[in-house]
Amino acid sequence: MPKDQLSPAATTRAVLRPIGLGRARITGGFWSPRQQRNAENAIPLGQDQLESAGNLQNLRLAAGIGEGEAIGPVFADSDVYKWLEAVAWEYGRNPSEDLLRRQRELTAVVAGAQRDDGYLDSVVQLREGDQGRYQKLVWSHEHYCAGHLIQAAVAQVRCTGDTGLLDVAVKLADHLVRTFGDDGIRDVDGHPVIEMALVELYRETGTAAYLDLARWFVEVRGHGIIAGHGHEPTYFSDRRPVREATTVEGHAVRAVYLAAGAADVAVETGDTELLEALKVQFAHMWDTKTYVTGGLGARWEGEAFGDEHELPPDRAYAETCAAIGGIQWAHRMLLATNDAFYADALERMLYNGFLAGVSLQGSEYFYVNPLQHRGSAHADGNRSPAHGRRGWFDCACCPPNIMRTLASLDGYLATTTADGVQLHQYAESAITTDTTELHVATTYPWNGTVRITIPKTPPTPWTLSLRIPTWCENATVDGKPVDPGQYAAITRTWSPGDTVELQLPLTPRTVTAAPRVDAVRGCVAIERGPLVYAVEQVDQDANVDDLHLLDAPIAAHHEPDLLDGVTVLTTQGRVDSPTHITAVPYYAWANREIGAMRVWLPRG
Amino acid sequence: MPKDQLSPAATTRAVLRPIGLGRARITGGFWSPRQQRNAENAIPLGQDQLESAGNLQNLRLAAGIGEGEAIGPVFADSDVYKWLEAVAWEYGRNPSEDLLRRQRELTAVVAGAQRDDGYLDSVVQLREGDQGRYQKLVWSHEHYCAGHLIQAAVAQVRCTGDTGLLDVAVKLADHLVRTFGDDGIRDVDGHPVIEMALVELYRETGTAAYLDLARWFVEVRGHGIIAGHGHEPTYFSDRRPVREATTVEGHAVRAVYLAAGAADVAVETGDTELLEALKVQFAHMWDTKTYVTGGLGARWEGEAFGDEHELPPDRAYAETCAAIGGIQWAHRMLLATNDAFYADALERMLYNGFLAGVSLQGSEYFYVNPLQHRGSAHADGNRSPAHGRRGWFDCACCPPNIMRTLASLDGYLATTTADGVQLHQYAESAITTDTTELHVATTYPWNGTVRITIPKTPPTPWTLSLRIPTWCENATVDGKPVDPGQYAAITRTWSPGDTVELQLPLTPRTVTAAPRVDAVRGCVAIERGPLVYAVEQVDQDANVDDLHLLDAPIAAHHEPDLLDGVTVLTTQGRVDSPTHITAVPYYAWANREIGAMRVWLPRG
Repeated sequence: MPKDQLSPAATTRAVLRPIGLGRARITGGFWSPRQQRNAENAIPLGQDQLESAGNLQNLRLAAGIGEGEAIGPVFADSDVYKWLEAVAWEYGRNPSEDLLRRQRELTAVVAGAQRDDGYLDSVVQLREGDQGRYQKLVWSHEHYCAGHLIQAAVAQVRCTGDTGLLDVAVKLADHLVRTFGDDGIRDVDGHPVIEMALVELYRETGTAAYLDLARWFVEVRGHGIIAGHGHEPTYFSDRRPVREATTVEGHAVRAVYLAAGAADVAVETGDTELLEALKVQFAHMWDTKTYVTGGLGARWEGEAFGDEHELPPDRAYAETCAAIGGIQWAHRMLLATNDAFYADALERMLYNGFLAGVSLQGSEYFYVNPLQHRGSAHADGNRSPAHGRRGWFDCACCPPNIMRTLASLDGYLATTTADGVQLHQYAESAITTDTTELHVATTYPWNGTVRITIPKTPPTPWTLSLRIPTWCENATVDGKPVDPGQYAAITRTWSPGDTVELQLPLTPRTVTAAPRVDAVRGCVAIERGPLVYAVEQVDQDANVDDLHLLDAPIAAHHEPDLLDGVTVLTTQGRVDSPTHITAVPYYAWANREIGAMRVWLPRG
Repeated sequence: MPKDQLSPAATTRAVLRPIGLGRARITGGFWSPRQQRNAENAIPLGQDQLESAGNLQNLRLAAGIGEGEAIGPVFADSDVYKWLEAVAWEYGRNPSEDLLRRQRELTAVVAGAQRDDGYLDSVVQLREGDQGRYQKLVWSHEHYCAGHLIQAAVAQVRCTGDTGLLDVAVKLADHLVRTFGDDGIRDVDGHPVIEMALVELYRETGTAAYLDLARWFVEVRGHGIIAGHGHEPTYFSDRRPVREATTVEGHAVRAVYLAAGAADVAVETGDTELLEALKVQFAHMWDTKTYVTGGLGARWEGEAFGDEHELPPDRAYAETCAAIGGIQWAHRMLLATNDAFYADALERMLYNGFLAGVSLQGSEYFYVNPLQHRGSAHADGNRSPAHGRRGWFDCACCPPNIMRTLASLDGYLATTTADGVQLHQYAESAITTDTTELHVATTYPWNGTVRITIPKTPPTPWTLSLRIPTWCENATVDGKPVDPGQYAAITRTWSPGDTVELQLPLTPRTVTAAPRVDAVRGCVAIERGPLVYAVEQVDQDANVDDLHLLDAPIAAHHEPDLLDGVTVLTTQGRVDSPTHITAVPYYAWANREIGAMRVWLPRG
C-alpha cells in the first residue's frame, strides 16, 4: 500500500481513521475545478510572489547564497513552508515533474539555511544572529515557522517519498526538544502551530519526544508565561490554560491553531479531560463567536474573537486563515469523537468562510471576509475588502494556507473504522480502503442527490455511515427518511455493484441569528444546502444598503454561465416599493465589480 | 479690562466673539461640582500621574536635571502641556497660590528643556538627539507636542499673566517658522493640533508668520506628503486636501483636530471656500459618522471613523479625546457661522460623549466610550471599558484633555456681537460684557426652566439670543412659543433687573437611528433634554443583554442621592415577560459596578 498521503496520519489513535489523498480522491463536481486552478494558477503564481516578496531570498541569504538583509515580516519563512506543503499535497493528488522540481529546488535552499545544530529561521538568523535566537519568542514566530516547516516535511515525505525536508524537520525538532521544556527554556511562541506539527512528526517518526514537547507547549501556556513579556496574554491565548478554558478568545488564528494542536495532543496521549475541555470550547465558539459563514474573529483590532454574540457583519474580520484553522480543529474533533456536529461545522466553514477567501480563478485572495460591504465603503489598508480580492498581501499568511487546504481537501471526505466507512463530505469522488471501494457521484452542493456505488467490498457485513447535515430536513437514504445532525448507518453484507442513494433536499431557507447577536437584529440570512448566500449590488435594481427582504417564496435556478456556474436564489424585497432580489453563494461574491453586499438582510 | 481668559481669543475675526472665563462664569448647577472636582481631585492627581508615568522626568532629563533615558510614548510631553493648560484655565476660574506654584515649577522645567534654537521635544532630544529632529515626523508627534505647549502658553498668559511658557512657545514657534514651509522642510506632523495652536498664538501675539505657517500645514496636507513615508494616508487625514474633502475619515482625533485648526485658519484668513468645505465635512460627519452620544470614531482598529453609517454600539471607540476635538471644532464653526446647529452638536457631545469619559469623582477616566457593554464582556487591554474607569492610561491623552476642557467650559456659554449677547449653553452662570451683565439661573439639564436676569444693561436696544435646542418641542420664551433648532432673538431696550424666562420642556423621548445604521436596526435610544440615557444592569431586574423596550410611557423623577443626583427615567420592557426598565444618564454609567449597559434597546 502507498504511504498515507494525509495529515493527521492514519496512525492516529483517534476514533476515526482518516483516508489519505491517493485513496480518497475528488474526481469531479464542485471542488475538482477549484483544485485544478489551485494547481495550475495559484501554486505557480505563489512561488513568483514568494520570490518577489523576498521570502525565498531570505532563505537563500541564510543559506549563504548571496548577500543582503532579510526583508518582510518575521514569519516570512512560514509562507514558503505552507507553499511547500501545498506542493506536496498537490503532488499526492496529481504527480508531476514540475512540482517535484520546484519542491526539490526549494527544499535544498531550506536545508542549506539550517544551522548545524538544527536551528532554522532565516529572518532571525539574518537580523539577530545566533545570539538573537528565542529572545523575543512572543513575537518572533520561530516556533510558528518551525511548525509549518514540519507540516510541509510530513506532507512531502508522505506524498513524494522525498526525505529532504523531513531530515531538516527532524533536525529542527530535535533541536527544539533539546532546547525547550522544564529543563531548558521555559517559553512558548506567541503564535501556535508547532503543537499540531510536533504531534504529526511524532506520528510520522514514532519519536515520543516530539509528542512530549507538543504536550509541554500546550500545558505551559496560560500560566502567565507570555504575560511576563509585558504583552496582553489574551491576544496570545495565554490568559488561561487550554485545559481550563471554556471559550476561545484573543487572536482567532492563534486560538484555533492552539486548540487543534491541543486536540492532537489529547488524542495521542489519551487525555480525555483535555478533549472534554476542547469540546466545551468548540461548542461555545460555535454558539456565540462564529458567523453564519463559519467565519471566526469579530474584531479587526487584534484580529480577534469578540465577546459573546459580538458578531458585526460589516466589520467581521473572519480571516481566511482562521476559517482554515477552524476546519483543522473541527476535523481533529471529528476524528476524535465521530460526532457529526464537527463535520457539519467543517462543511459550513469550508463552503463559506474559507472558500470566500479565494477568487474563482484561484489566485486572488481575501484576507478579511465580511458579511456586509456597504456601497460607500472606503478602501484603506492592504487587507480592506473594499479593494476586492488581491494577488498577495503584506502579511501573506492566507494565500499559501488556502493552497495547502485546497490541495489536501480530499482528506476530509471519508474515514474508516473497524466497522466500516464514514462519508463526511459529499463530492464526486472515489474512496478506497484496504478492502473496499466506493464511488460517489454527485453535483452537490447544487443538487442534493448523492449516489454511492460500491464496486469492491469484503464478503462480511460492514457499515456505511452517511452524514445527514443538520440543516437538512426530509433527507432520505434509498427512499427512507433519516434524521439530520447525525450519521445514517447502513449495515449489511454488500455485493460489488451495490448502490445507495442519499437525497438531501436543498430547499432554500432563511435563518435568524441568536437574539443576543445585536448586530443583525431583525435580519435573516438565506441558505441553500451548505451554502450561505449573499446579495450583491451587481445583481440588484435597488440599493443594497437600503434593501429589506420580504417574506416571499425563494426560488432557485442554476445559472451555468454565471460565476463559473452557481445556483442563484431569487425572491422579493423592498426599499420603498417592492423589488426583486437575487442572491448568489457567499463564496462567489466580489468576483465581479466590488460593490455593496449583504449576507444578513432586514426582514419585512 | 482683564485679558480675555479663553481660547479662541476674543480678537478672532469670527462672526461671534467668545467671552472668557472671568467674564462668563459658571456659578452653580450641573457643571459647578464637576469643575470643583476637576480642580480638587483631578488636577492634583494628574500631576502625580505625570510624575509616576515619567512624563515630568523626561522634561527634567532634557533640562539637564539628572540622568536617564526617556520613558513612555513619543507624545509624553503633550500630556504635561495639556495639564498645564488645565491649570491655567482653572486659575482663571479660581486663582490660587497652589496652582500658581505648580504651574511655575513645571514651566521652569519646560523652559529648561528647550534647546537654544527653540526646538523642544524631550523624548526626541533624549532618544534621538539633535540629529533626530523631524526625521520621523509622521509618528514623532513633535508638532503635536509643540501645539499643546503653545495652547498651554496662551492659556497661561491669559489667565495668570505669567509669560514664562509664552516665551518658550514663541521661541518654539519662531523655530518652526524658520524650519518648515516651502523654503524649509516640506513635511507635516502625523497628528494635527499645531494648526489650532499657531492660529491662537497669532491671535495672542499678532505675529502673522504663525498664521501663515498654520495655513501652510493645513494646505500641504492631503497631497501625499505622509503617503511618501510608506504609511496609510487615510489614518493621518492625508488622503485628500482639507479644502477638497467631503467627509472626515481615518483616526478620529487627528481628523477633528485638523478640522478645528482649519476652521481657525479659514476664519482668520477670511477663506470662505475652506469654511464651506468644513461645513460640508461637519454635516457629513454628523449625519453619517456620529453616535447618538456625539461620540466620534466607530473603529478600534486605527481609532478611526468607520464608513458611512458604520456605528456599532458595542465596539464604538468614541474616544474621549475625539469628543473633545469635536467640541473644539463645533465651537469654532459656531463662532464662524452663528449657526445653532453647531451649538446643538456641541451640547450633545458635551453632555454625553465627552462627560461619560470621566467618573463622578472626576479622577477616573474612560478612553473608549461604547454605547453597549455586554455582561459577558471580557477586559483585555488597558483601554477596555470592561475594566471600568481607570486612573490613568498607558497612552494618557484623555485625562488631561478632560481636565483642560472642564476648566475652560465657561467659555462655551455665551458670545457677543455688536448687536447683543448670545446664550449657547445653559448653566447657572454670570455673563459680563463690556456693557451688560446677565445672570442665568437654572438647574438644567434636570429642569428646563432657564431664568435670565439682566442687572446691568446699556440704555440702547440690543438683542438677547437664546438657543432653542433642536430636540426641544414646545419651547417658550416668556410664554411665547419659539422654534427649535435656531436662536430665539429678543430685541428691546432693556432695563436693569429685567428678566426673561425660557422654558425648555424636557419630555422624555425615544429616538431612532437612520435606517442605514445597521447595527441598531429595530432599536431606540431614550433621551431627555440634552442627555442620552443608558440602561445599566445594576438598575434592572432583567438581563440587559436580552431586554426589549415596550412602547410604554416614560416617567422621569429626580433621585438626589443617586449618582450625585440624576433624573432617572422608568418605563416598561420585556424579556419573555414584561419587566420594569430604569435608565440613567449615559454620562453616569459605570460609576457603580461595571456591568451590562445599553443606550440602544430593541423596540417591541
